[in-house]
Amino acid sequence: MNAVHSTIAHPVTDILEKFRHTRQMTEDICKPLAIEDYLPQPMVDVSPPKWHLAHTTWFFETFLLSRFIPGYTPFHPDYNFLFNSYYNNVGARTARNHRGFLSRPTVNEIYDYRAYVNEQMNRLENYITSADERECVELLEIGCNHEQQHQELLVTDLKYILSCNYIRPVYHTPVFPAVHPEQAVKTVFLPVEEGIYEIGHKGNDFCFDNELGVHKVFLNAFHIQNKLVTNGEYLEFVEAGGYTDFRHWLSEGWELVKTEQWQHPLYWENRDGEWYEFSLHGDIKLDKQAPVCHISFFEAAAYAAWAGKRLPTEFEWEIAARKYNPALQTENSQDKMLFHPLKAKKDDGLLCHQLFGEMWQWTNSAYLSYPGFSIAPGALGEYNGKFMMNQMVLRGSSCATPYNHMRHTYRNFFPPNAQWQFAGIRLAE
Amino acid sequence: MNAVHSTIAHPVTDILEKFRHTRQMTEDICKPLAIEDYLPQPMVDVSPPKWHLAHTTWFFETFLLSRFIPGYTPFHPDYNFLFNSYYNNVGARTARNHRGFLSRPTVNEIYDYRAYVNEQMNRLENYITSADERECVELLEIGCNHEQQHQELLVTDLKYILSCNYIRPVYHTPVFPAVHPEQAVKTVFLPVEEGIYEIGHKGNDFCFDNELGVHKVFLNAFHIQNKLVTNGEYLEFVEAGGYTDFRHWLSEGWELVKTEQWQHPLYWENRDGEWYEFSLHGDIKLDKQAPVCHISFFEAAAYAAWAGKRLPTEFEWEIAARKYNPALQTENSQDKMLFHPLKAKKDDGLLCHQLFGEMWQWTNSAYLSYPGFSIAPGALGEYNGKFMMNQMVLRGSSCATPYNHMRHTYRNFFPPNAQWQFAGIRLAE
Amino acid sequence: MNAVHSTIAHPVTDILEKFRHTRQMTEDICKPLAIEDYLPQPMVDVSPPKWHLAHTTWFFETFLLSRFIPGYTPFHPDYNFLFNSYYNNVGARTARNHRGFLSRPTVNEIYDYRAYVNEQMNRLENYITSADERECVELLEIGCNHEQQHQELLVTDLKYILSCNYIRPVYHTPVFPAVHPEQAVKTVFLPVEEGIYEIGHKGNDFCFDNELGVHKVFLNAFHIQNKLVTNGEYLEFVEAGGYTDFRHWLSEGWELVKTEQWQHPLYWENRDGEWYEFSLHGDIKLDKQAPVCHISFFEAAAYAAWAGKRLPTEFEWEIAARKYNPALQTENSQDKMLFHPLKAKKDDGLLCHQLFGEMWQWTNSAYLSYPGFSIAPGALGEYNGKFMMNQMVLRGSSCATPYNHMRHTYRNFFPPNAQWQFAGIRLAE
Amino acid sequence: MNAVHSTIAHPVTDILEKFRHTRQMTEDICKPLAIEDYLPQPMVDVSPPKWHLAHTTWFFETFLLSRFIPGYTPFHPDYNFLFNSYYNNVGARTARNHRGFLSRPTVNEIYDYRAYVNEQMNRLENYITSADERECVELLEIGCNHEQQHQELLVTDLKYILSCNYIRPVYHTPVFPAVHPEQAVKTVFLPVEEGIYEIGHKGNDFCFDNELGVHKVFLNAFHIQNKLVTNGEYLEFVEAGGYTDFRHWLSEGWELVKTEQWQHPLYWENRDGEWYEFSLHGDIKLDKQAPVCHISFFEAAAYAAWAGKRLPTEFEWEIAARKYNPALQTENSQDKMLFHPLKAKKDDGLLCHQLFGEMWQWTNSAYLSYPGFSIAPGALGEYNGKFMMNQMVLRGSSCATPYNHMRHTYRNFFPPNAQWQFAGIRLAE
Ligand SMILES: [Fe+3]
Ligand SMILES: [Fe+3]
Ligand SMILES: [Fe+3]
Ligand SMILES: [Fe+3]
Repeated sequence: MNAVHSTIAHPVTDILEKFRHTRQMTEDICKPLAIEDYLPQPMVDVSPPKWHLAHTTWFFETFLLSRFIPGYTPFHPDYNFLFNSYYNNVGARTARNHRGFLSRPTVNEIYDYRAYVNEQMNRLENYITSADERECVELLEIGCNHEQQHQELLVTDLKYILSCNYIRPVYHTPVFPAVHPEQAVKTVFLPVEEGIYEIGHKGNDFCFDNELGVHKVFLNAFHIQNKLVTNGEYLEFVEAGGYTDFRHWLSEGWELVKTEQWQHPLYWENRDGEWYEFSLHGDIKLDKQAPVCHISFFEAAAYAAWAGKRLPTEFEWEIAARKYNPALQTENSQDKMLFHPLKAKKDDGLLCHQLFGEMWQWTNSAYLSYPGFSIAPGALGEYNGKFMMNQMVLRGSSCATPYNHMRHTYRNFFPPNAQWQFAGIRLAE
Repeated sequence: MNAVHSTIAHPVTDILEKFRHTRQMTEDICKPLAIEDYLPQPMVDVSPPKWHLAHTTWFFETFLLSRFIPGYTPFHPDYNFLFNSYYNNVGARTARNHRGFLSRPTVNEIYDYRAYVNEQMNRLENYITSADERECVELLEIGCNHEQQHQELLVTDLKYILSCNYIRPVYHTPVFPAVHPEQAVKTVFLPVEEGIYEIGHKGNDFCFDNELGVHKVFLNAFHIQNKLVTNGEYLEFVEAGGYTDFRHWLSEGWELVKTEQWQHPLYWENRDGEWYEFSLHGDIKLDKQAPVCHISFFEAAAYAAWAGKRLPTEFEWEIAARKYNPALQTENSQDKMLFHPLKAKKDDGLLCHQLFGEMWQWTNSAYLSYPGFSIAPGALGEYNGKFMMNQMVLRGSSCATPYNHMRHTYRNFFPPNAQWQFAGIRLAE
Repeated sequence: MNAVHSTIAHPVTDILEKFRHTRQMTEDICKPLAIEDYLPQPMVDVSPPKWHLAHTTWFFETFLLSRFIPGYTPFHPDYNFLFNSYYNNVGARTARNHRGFLSRPTVNEIYDYRAYVNEQMNRLENYITSADERECVELLEIGCNHEQQHQELLVTDLKYILSCNYIRPVYHTPVFPAVHPEQAVKTVFLPVEEGIYEIGHKGNDFCFDNELGVHKVFLNAFHIQNKLVTNGEYLEFVEAGGYTDFRHWLSEGWELVKTEQWQHPLYWENRDGEWYEFSLHGDIKLDKQAPVCHISFFEAAAYAAWAGKRLPTEFEWEIAARKYNPALQTENSQDKMLFHPLKAKKDDGLLCHQLFGEMWQWTNSAYLSYPGFSIAPGALGEYNGKFMMNQMVLRGSSCATPYNHMRHTYRNFFPPNAQWQFAGIRLAE
Repeated sequence: MNAVHSTIAHPVTDILEKFRHTRQMTEDICKPLAIEDYLPQPMVDVSPPKWHLAHTTWFFETFLLSRFIPGYTPFHPDYNFLFNSYYNNVGARTARNHRGFLSRPTVNEIYDYRAYVNEQMNRLENYITSADERECVELLEIGCNHEQQHQELLVTDLKYILSCNYIRPVYHTPVFPAVHPEQAVKTVFLPVEEGIYEIGHKGNDFCFDNELGVHKVFLNAFHIQNKLVTNGEYLEFVEAGGYTDFRHWLSEGWELVKTEQWQHPLYWENRDGEWYEFSLHGDIKLDKQAPVCHISFFEAAAYAAWAGKRLPTEFEWEIAARKYNPALQTENSQDKMLFHPLKAKKDDGLLCHQLFGEMWQWTNSAYLSYPGFSIAPGALGEYNGKFMMNQMVLRGSSCATPYNHMRHTYRNFFPPNAQWQFAGIRLAE
């Protein structure tokens, strides 16, 4: 199969360990929620937490249990309809914009569904022959990585849902690491040399199909910003009239500025001259040293135009990341459960800060296939390829991404107007 | 004030009895619900049950407690914004189509809000002087009648919400009275004589402002159907191609048939040639003797055109109801908690059956003001008058209407496309 | 047939005289147009002049020539598709909102079509037997009245089309009768007595089916304004903040004020503090003595609420008009080809001015059927009845209505948001 | 300036020759039109021919005459508002979707406008100093190239406008070159070698700013189809259920297939089993040897997926075109005034046919900036750069493109759903 790529034969037992850990983490993220927080769908791109919990479970039931366990009895006959996301191969399903209309099954019933499937997964090993083993492991890997992707969406969707409450609830109150002012990092543009580089995933570890097809690209010499653009820098753009001057904006972005009345980033609010930001630990005063987050591509591109710089291509980003952070070092990630980006600090042992673990970084590359990409047969062929239009690539990872989910080659993608992801700006020149 | 009309001086204590009863009934209706059922808003006309619980409470807090208790402390400073419905006089509020986006306050917090306001209402009497008494009683009457209206909406909205679940949940399983086949009633058209009649509410009991302005109308002699149109009769219309022949339909109704793909009443479903109907006690086989329900005005008018009859005007309905059921006899009402219409039976002691207690009946009258109507000053002037456009009048009452809420003069109103109310058809000729 | 009502047996020859006159008038109205003015459809309610010219011709071809002349050859096989308006009985047709997309047939081809049909109509008499004569005359009457209705729409649509040109073209420059200041009329409210009155068309002259079913209504005593509300009076409402205070407006009207940003009547414009009005003779300074025109029902109702008055019902209007202008006297009408309303003047010989000939007058009556109304079989049954929903009745006639088209009983109707008709305000109390 | 690139110092006189030729050609294209054909805007992407005539004239008036002739008097003070397309720098303008609402200025007035500006352009030379000369020549070059682009849009828009007439008018009846069946070309995939190539415009000839920034790319070895996909080949896809199988389609394309009910290319029609195609010379039987045209990117990509091939990138296309048609040989172009694509023929002297002159060819490259691109200061900076989002690149040229407008490096771009352009498919592997 080529929807994913993984050639080492993990024994099923090993990967089941990862499975259990991943399943637990999804539920841990939901611990602070009231039942009510599991339900709303305040915009079509946001799914109710309830739905994430069930859909990730449906994935294992559909692609693993129903496949490998003869005579497997699904938990409930209607759940295949209810919790299929977009797999036309798997049939009809709840309309995407109706996910918030479902009061039933209840949250408790969905936790029962999870428990049932987790339990059934323990039986899986008994049915895997050596002929099946490789495929089963690959599907398990995809299932775990799929659930990890939904963990990240769960956090971003939850933040959006809570922000829609006029009464702004607090999700949690973590302790943030103190950063001494002397640790503040100055912006520098770091060089990368002209040359032919290899792009794409190599080796036997898991990756998604869209990262495959290692291929050469020629890059001109370029420089990349050593850290993310900060709230303070972005505020200068806002205060310089950035949202009122069409010259900085792509035509379609400028239409959004006018029709959606964008005046600042999604979660910012100005109260009597003071700037605040909604976060999962409540409304907080805007920290000017922290990186600006929840930025759409249109805003990132307008900022870059205003600043006289540009966004890197996804190839430039990948090569720069390999050069300046080959070991995937990071200060932050889902595992810390802070769910908020940290500011850069000098002594993190890196020349180029915040490549991973704080927020995804918009590139000026459209999400298109690599040479040699082809859509896999069967349902999992719908995983990535059919979305390759009108989306831009983001690279890196965020404070909601599991540490073991990060890769130099990871291609995240969203439409250029999407604001609710943990996404920010790293400039190039 | 003229938003309502009530001249008997009830002591506040008497009306508080009604208040407590009404408040309890609202919560009784919600008893079978899961927390999750309180939240969704699957179409803009439907409000989440949670919202009904809070908004009716807000009404007492805003128009009674804040007004009469000096220094009254509202339960929560944000609730005035959150739970105001459409009173521009009272200020900004949650957008109507965003009611389903609110996960907070939680359902339990809203029950606490109800308890707090109920408790505070006990203190009210201490602050009412003889100068205030009459106004206070009138406001309490409106408040109770307002909550009773929302009880009915709560039931209709809840039915719609549950129906949106692919897994069709059962709200309750009441025992329905057995009706012997010999009790079946044949359709007869009952005469009403030509003459000048008085229309509108008289006397000292409570009524809404839109029923006021007793005035004379001249009616030609007419006949009114002695019972509601049945599922069986409506099914003939469906099976005769009623939904595919433009000639029966108003132009705007025919557009809806095409764009919304209406093929039968809202909750009907044909499974392998057998007709079913969704109800609060689950999916049931369509009972051909029972009255057809959840019909829009457009469907009622198309049916009447097909049947070679017409809908009565609201004046004809009122005069016929006074003549044939002067004492407001009824077999059904909210108090029975069946929440489903019953079939007509011979021995109910009436010539004209089902005028009250089963479902509202569409009339061919637009919802407009009676002579002499004027909008009251202040917020309560927004209660009825501003909706007098593009709505049709319904008369009678339904199985979700409290018994003491029924009146011959009651003017209910909905847009001609509304299908989710307990509304049906009584013909005239 | 009952779509129209006409029992005198006009010989076909007489009515053909009217036919020729009517056909000529339609073309006379178009004389000042450039070819280009015949084409645009700047909003869905407006039809291109070209379309009016062809559709009225199609009416005669379809309902007269094809019916009575054996083997009649239509001018062009595609015109039945192109120029049917809304007759489902006659089959598929151009989508209403695509009328402005048709560059062909050209304007000259449509004039050829008109000439061909006019010519063919001369042959009609040869085919009419005594058995057919009555039906033929009735159809001819409808055809002429239909074309007269379209003449009025032609003028209103044309005004709208020209107004959409940034360069505001002048249609014509007529000479208006001078009105001496001493002729100015003061507002008085004229009495009409309580009683039972007969409503609806009697006698043998032509009327539309919606005027039929003479029936009695009971009216309370009321008073009606002796003239139309003026620009000056309406301007007071505008300047008093009428468009910024929700309290005057119906709920749906207030939504329009906000979403459509209504701030004054459709054709008004404020340039540097001076008010102007677009007219068919160009942009003119607002004449405060002239009646306010191009008013929607929502604006009329808001003005009435602000003024502490109300709009009359259509029954009140009809009875008042019979009492105060039994002979249909008028200062203005299509025949004068001014296409602009005149101010009231003392010496017009009437106590109640401007009932006819200046502009239609909104009533507070919904457009619904009279008792005994039924839809005629066949295509002409679609003429009126299917539009009886979400429209309000206007009474009187306008400066674009032919003199011989006026009647006390005429029921014009438009949705409450329609602004582009010659429609204004007469108050009642 | 960097909106365009042209370093040879053409004397103004030379370029004025091109100006006159270009201006004349625009009017020649319009010769067969009726006045009425100049007006409609049947979809927002289509502009009325009238508007193209005026807007291209406005370009010269705004960027040349007003700039270089002191005290220049514009033809009409309102035309700057009316005929500005999207230049925010130049101010407010007619809403894009209102272009079809303008009946005035008339077509003749617009021809007068053209004549006036043409005349004034003769005076231009008198005002150009040696300091200005280069800029003036560059602006004239842009003006001519801009008008040439609009000539192509004029033809495509005109085809769409005529197709919206139920009566399908014939624009012209040209004589097509006969192609002997022996000239038929078989599909072959031609090789291009792996390597580093230079992309982008070099030299002193005119090009648009988006072609600039010569840069290196690395290409893997690939093969390119030696001719365009034919109607016959595409028909196989249609008849194999291509429009009913989601697996071939990008997700967004599949939504369009369902909501827009796409079943075949835009201008195809199946009449009783026979396929026809609308063309500027009328409805014609589908020629299976001719190349399939008026294809959206979504359809091109679905066809490629179904055929087991892919679309080339814009870089692959450019390198292949340089290799296989270095001299820009072509059988067809605007100059021939056929405005319809021709089939490939063996003896055109090329290995790779139809690269230029028949239709644009979709590539799998998003329209993004080349390295080093920056937006020019001033209004002309709005020419290209701000549209670099959600559009795909097309390469080549079409039967509506002037011969001297073709370049190997030309980057045309449209959104992936656009069907009305002369655009087709060349596969790669
Ligand atoms: Fe998923
Ligand atoms: Fe309420
Ligand atoms: Fe008509
Ligand atoms: Fe242009």
